[in-house]
Amino acid sequence: MANITKKVSWSSRADESGAAGEGTPLLNGSEQPRLSRQQSEGGSIFQIGRLSTVDLEEEITSDEDSIKGRPKEIPHNEKLLSLKYESLDYDNIENQLFLEEERRMSYLGFRCLEISRWVVCGWIGFLTGLIACFIDIAVEELAGFKYQVVKENIEKFTEVGGLSISLLLWAVLNAAIVMVGAIIVAYFEPIAAGSGIPQIKCYLNGIKIPRVVRLKTLVVKVCGVICSVVGGLAVGKEGPMIHSGAVVAAGVSQGRSTSLKKDFKIFEYFRRDTEKRDFVSAGAAAGVSAAFGAPVGGVLFSLEEGASFWNQMLTWRIFFASMISTFTLNFFLSIYHKNTGDLSSPGLINFGRFEGDSVAYNLYEIPLFILMGAIGGLLGALFNILNYWLTIFRIRYVHRPCLQVMEAMLVAAVTATVSFTMIYFSNDCQPLGPEHAEEYPLQLFCADGEYNSMATAFFNTPERSVRSLFHNQAGTYNPLTLGLFTLTYFFLACWTYGLAVSAGVFIPSLLIGAAWGRLFGILLAYITPNSAAKWADPGKYALIGAAAQLGGIVRMTLSLTVIMVEATGNVTYGFPIMLVLMTAKIVGDYIVEGLYDIHIKLQSVPFLHWEAPATSHWLTAREVMSSPVTCLNRIEKVGTIVDTLSNTSTKHNGFPVVVQVLGNEEPAKLCGLILRSQLIVLLKHKVFVELARSRLTHRKLQLKDFRDAYPRFPPIQSIHVSQDERECMMDLTEFMNPTPYTVPQETSLPRVFKLFRALGLRHLVVVDDENRVVGLVTRKDLARYHLGKHGLEELQLAQT
Amino acid sequence: MANITKKVSWSSRADESGAAGEGTPLLNGSEQPRLSRQQSEGGSIFQIGRLSTVDLEEEITSDEDSIKGRPKEIPHNEKLLSLKYESLDYDNIENQLFLEEERRMSYLGFRCLEISRWVVCGWIGFLTGLIACFIDIAVEELAGFKYQVVKENIEKFTEVGGLSISLLLWAVLNAAIVMVGAIIVAYFEPIAAGSGIPQIKCYLNGIKIPRVVRLKTLVVKVCGVICSVVGGLAVGKEGPMIHSGAVVAAGVSQGRSTSLKKDFKIFEYFRRDTEKRDFVSAGAAAGVSAAFGAPVGGVLFSLEEGASFWNQMLTWRIFFASMISTFTLNFFLSIYHKNTGDLSSPGLINFGRFEGDSVAYNLYEIPLFILMGAIGGLLGALFNILNYWLTIFRIRYVHRPCLQVMEAMLVAAVTATVSFTMIYFSNDCQPLGPEHAEEYPLQLFCADGEYNSMATAFFNTPERSVRSLFHNQAGTYNPLTLGLFTLTYFFLACWTYGLAVSAGVFIPSLLIGAAWGRLFGILLAYITPNSAAKWADPGKYALIGAAAQLGGIVRMTLSLTVIMVEATGNVTYGFPIMLVLMTAKIVGDYIVEGLYDIHIKLQSVPFLHWEAPATSHWLTAREVMSSPVTCLNRIEKVGTIVDTLSNTSTKHNGFPVVVQVLGNEEPAKLCGLILRSQLIVLLKHKVFVELARSRLTHRKLQLKDFRDAYPRFPPIQSIHVSQDERECMMDLTEFMNPTPYTVPQETSLPRVFKLFRALGLRHLVVVDDENRVVGLVTRKDLARYHLGKHGLEELQLAQT
Repeated sequence: MANITKKVSWSSRADESGAAGEGTPLLNGSEQPRLSRQQSEGGSIFQIGRLSTVDLEEEITSDEDSIKGRPKEIPHNEKLLSLKYESLDYDNIENQLFLEEERRMSYLGFRCLEISRWVVCGWIGFLTGLIACFIDIAVEELAGFKYQVVKENIEKFTEVGGLSISLLLWAVLNAAIVMVGAIIVAYFEPIAAGSGIPQIKCYLNGIKIPRVVRLKTLVVKVCGVICSVVGGLAVGKEGPMIHSGAVVAAGVSQGRSTSLKKDFKIFEYFRRDTEKRDFVSAGAAAGVSAAFGAPVGGVLFSLEEGASFWNQMLTWRIFFASMISTFTLNFFLSIYHKNTGDLSSPGLINFGRFEGDSVAYNLYEIPLFILMGAIGGLLGALFNILNYWLTIFRIRYVHRPCLQVMEAMLVAAVTATVSFTMIYFSNDCQPLGPEHAEEYPLQLFCADGEYNSMATAFFNTPERSVRSLFHNQAGTYNPLTLGLFTLTYFFLACWTYGLAVSAGVFIPSLLIGAAWGRLFGILLAYITPNSAAKWADPGKYALIGAAAQLGGIVRMTLSLTVIMVEATGNVTYGFPIMLVLMTAKIVGDYIVEGLYDIHIKLQSVPFLHWEAPATSHWLTAREVMSSPVTCLNRIEKVGTIVDTLSNTSTKHNGFPVVVQVLGNEEPAKLCGLILRSQLIVLLKHKVFVELARSRLTHRKLQLKDFRDAYPRFPPIQSIHVSQDERECMMDLTEFMNPTPYTVPQETSLPRVFKLFRALGLRHLVVVDDENRVVGLVTRKDLARYHLGKHGLEELQLAQT
Repeated sequence: MANITKKVSWSSRADESGAAGEGTPLLNGSEQPRLSRQQSEGGSIFQIGRLSTVDLEEEITSDEDSIKGRPKEIPHNEKLLSLKYESLDYDNIENQLFLEEERRMSYLGFRCLEISRWVVCGWIGFLTGLIACFIDIAVEELAGFKYQVVKENIEKFTEVGGLSISLLLWAVLNAAIVMVGAIIVAYFEPIAAGSGIPQIKCYLNGIKIPRVVRLKTLVVKVCGVICSVVGGLAVGKEGPMIHSGAVVAAGVSQGRSTSLKKDFKIFEYFRRDTEKRDFVSAGAAAGVSAAFGAPVGGVLFSLEEGASFWNQMLTWRIFFASMISTFTLNFFLSIYHKNTGDLSSPGLINFGRFEGDSVAYNLYEIPLFILMGAIGGLLGALFNILNYWLTIFRIRYVHRPCLQVMEAMLVAAVTATVSFTMIYFSNDCQPLGPEHAEEYPLQLFCADGEYNSMATAFFNTPERSVRSLFHNQAGTYNPLTLGLFTLTYFFLACWTYGLAVSAGVFIPSLLIGAAWGRLFGILLAYITPNSAAKWADPGKYALIGAAAQLGGIVRMTLSLTVIMVEATGNVTYGFPIMLVLMTAKIVGDYIVEGLYDIHIKLQSVPFLHWEAPATSHWLTAREVMSSPVTCLNRIEKVGTIVDTLSNTSTKHNGFPVVVQVLGNEEPAKLCGLILRSQLIVLLKHKVFVELARSRLTHRKLQLKDFRDAYPRFPPIQSIHVSQDERECMMDLTEFMNPTPYTVPQETSLPRVFKLFRALGLRHLVVVDDENRVVGLVTRKDLARYHLGKHGLEELQLAQT
């Protein structure tokens, strides 16, 4: 046990400032863009690379001069990649402990494990369904109460005058309810703001977003979304379901709650990132499934947004969770609606049935649908650009919690005021049919037996408004009402998204789209009065418009098609919806990214896309990697480890382990990889070997110790190591991953990227042809390169 | 240019007989199962491994003693893995040529490439749709003609007696038509037999099935399927569409037809396995989409059966191809049906509309559905077992083309006879309603204005029979008719699958299931006469039964659910269909594998499943890999290369390239990997360096040369190398893949498997800690291990 304990640092490329995140020192924290890197070596093949670099620089310079349609002052985090986000370890750490456990396990053991995976997925689906049910009933009851109160008040004052009191009542009620929602979000759990979809996307992509799957987040999310919807904001309750499902999944699969300090001592095998991610995918799918009554759509959402490696068994489990989720929701809602056992109603949002002849479409309508897709793409892009500006404004000026709460209240009051004004000045009166489905018809200044049509759209939960737009008979709305509604709701929704309240953007998007889609349908009927019968159903165009608008904003295609089809309960529209979503995506992508991607980018999250940028073949691992790398010896001095971990300027998370033969002058060879979290556990349990007596001072560590510490490993500062102990040695052999994936230095970036993404790696060791460590590639090294408008761009890394 | 050219053979483990396929010599071709391998090294961690080996041996022995439910004489290819199948190279060969090309390409170039990918997918969809349309119309016309002739004949002889002449006419007509189909399949293209789904599954899995995507196969397939369906066999025309779509995709994407000797000089970039596979996935999806009118189901089929690495852009392209395919089919069929522009009809099979109140289901029906799922699973397993026995019989005794044709004719005649007998002895007469949809109602001995109900099921194309079972009013069939029909059709379909005709098993499965499902529904109504109104719709149970039976036979869940939902045009049944399919799968999998998997296994194809067997952690790359490996030097003597390639006993396909410093005694280090196909092209173009004059004797080779030769590289025997040329050298530097993926020897099998599967590798080099080649892992080395009933089993490799 008298091995050399010298810390090995490969500094062959110390001339390059390898600023990078995990596992590598941040030598360069400056704000200057490092667009060109010195290429100190390389033969003929690098000349092309060099040429490209020059091109690139020129292009980017010109790009920065002439950014179109965006504010001139780009905020400081536009071209940055934050170093504060860590990665998840999706690659199994196959160290000796793990392999021993796996080898001990019998075939039956694996079957039990598989069964418990199914059980967990069943629970995830069940609980997600219950939460959806709770949200639905709470919103239904509270909103019903609120609208009843306001309606009575309005009716009281309509005749006698003094409607301003009604307006005040409405605005104050809304603001008060929203205030509650905003306070819990802004003060207790800011991560619960918004729909949570960007966060879950990041999580599934492999980024550890702090506190995103905690119980507290779930509670705040659920209460927050109820407040926002009841408070009358232009939001939906569907998006947050995805986040809720993910939290449920992360909780259930671990068999314990760290927040509640309760450990059920079950599912301990699942206490690692690999397994947890699989369950979180299932949870997200269950969330979608509950929200839209779309189990297949849920599976596709999870796969489209998350998984890179598609595993059949996993897919089926996700599917199972989705099924159970819809089923649970339907079952409990059927009880609530006094219709026990009728399971044919879908999820939280119900588009109603599209049946009969009105659903058919004809060939000559296809170009119209494509046109609507393009409009949706344009409007969606406009929405995204406006929201982008707004978000930048918020990042700069509205970052204090009290300001956020006040903004939310302001929006709530303005929403009520605008709605009221629109209703007040509208004179679109419609007869109140006997079979009429309006929940809260406002008569206002209409004749008896009539109601105000504008109120149908505004004075209602958004879900109901969407359904009215889809299904109310032709002639229920006049074009002016729809036009004004579209306009005001567009801006309201845009203003609302990004507030410090937990709420989704799906329903507002659908509502805007349904409104202008219906308008489109009505106008078509005006233009071609002769063939009126053919165009008789504006509801069809409302549906297409809704799809176009939603597609233009969020830019999902496959999963969104399936979600829409499942929510309408009819596959006839499958083809037009696909066409529309694709058109919307193509048109929208040409202008600006999707809403979620914009928000991910604004957070400077090191998000890995599906493929490396197309024009990145001239980059190799040598250019991309961070170096020098801090390596540890297989048998390392405790003091060295503590110092390495304590080095606050670096915050490495993974360390290649090397072995050096005594007396041999050759550089050491790679023999493993160990993570910061593992070292922390080892230090905590004092797994030391006393050098003098060559004696073990500790009990044998087991996987359980690592699992118990997962996922909240203590910081190094909390671990006390005495001076004596610093002189001890630590044998890493048993704990390190002895077979980390490696690549040679000449590997091209796309190849590195593919390996990294396909296997969900966190660290990829770059070795020379003697198997010596020369660098380390982490997520940030890869995410740094992205394709801008004019070619490859390199983002800057910063400690924001 | 005076490098050492000695062929390096690592023989460190020559004591182990490393019998394996690609890239490694077959030293052991014996028929003895090699269940335990000597583990000559390894420390403490290998003890567990050793123990497991012993357990395994015992278990397998007991397993072989007591195989339940299967014939005792296991055929010779039951526990074998064939060496005749090669793998595809899904991993890009990033050699210097490739990288130079990529680096030369501008951003615009990549965009053009992306656009041409979309164009290709559009063409794939369009042509697949056209083919589906052609098959549909041809079957419709020819079958209509046939049934008309037979019907008239039967009507003629019903009164006067002598129906045996009608029977003869029917049987002879069927046998003759089937004979044509069988002859073209058996004599011209045996690979076109069956549905082609197992073959496409294998292709997408990465196995090169000879001639599977050739034009000739497509022609035979299309003609064959028309003959089989018109010939009245118990088959469907849907399965072959998947194969057809795949062939179309492989053809269109290459921009040329080798069979027709026509090169359009387009899409040359796509002439490699990676790109081709992506397009073939799209083709398969387009096929499903056309067959069932299920574009989303098509995408899911491709992903569930094929892709391991899920790429968003690829998925969207696949989706696009599927859309276009359904659209094309619908459009042309709408013209054929004189209803131009009505696009709301789905694919080849049309389940008809399920609408109105009858579609609702209730909570208490769920257990019934699950029960039906279980029945479907059992019946499906029975079907599969019977077909397994039959296939073994066929492999042994019916392998000559003439025998195959005769068997097909026999089945056709028997099918007609059985059908006729059933119809003849049936006295289930039903009134001929005015709105009746029967195409060929047979009166036979029924009263005037009535028709024979058994004939509805038998005297019809299977698609129409399915539709009748789903939609005919309650009371149209009596239980005895349905029971007898189920029984006979079950055995007929089972006998038919595996004949040398091209035909699918989807429709027969649906038909069997629909029949017993309807029977189930009728019986339920009998049992509970009071609540008859609730159970009134046996069509619903027919649908559930169809799903259960199909699920029990083919064992797909997610994609099948979506296909069924899309084909019924109604998502209400989504949840019950899911439940039923899952139950069917679980029950069925407990007994025997799915039909396609059985056939894949019987072909001894080295199919890689999604994950390594659960209990394989005790195996490491050292045990799994083949060694010694034939390596080549970076600058190698031509003679050595020719000899290596000509060695018929080995048939290596990939060779690690090593570099050895002159005068250094150390073993050589890995520096690349080169494929047989590349070497062949190099030899063909005489890329030699004359040793004496150190002079290049060739023009610079380009990627185009490799692309032109793809995919039919000539055999080594066809390349003449003179004695002088044998003394020349060949510089492999530019052509080899300089950064092959490697793993250390200690890597566990699951880890190797994951890397191999996620990246679609063909060769994985195993290196020691000095980066020296010690072994090579290929598909067969991994596919050899599979999970039997009692734990890990090891298949034997053979040159069958």
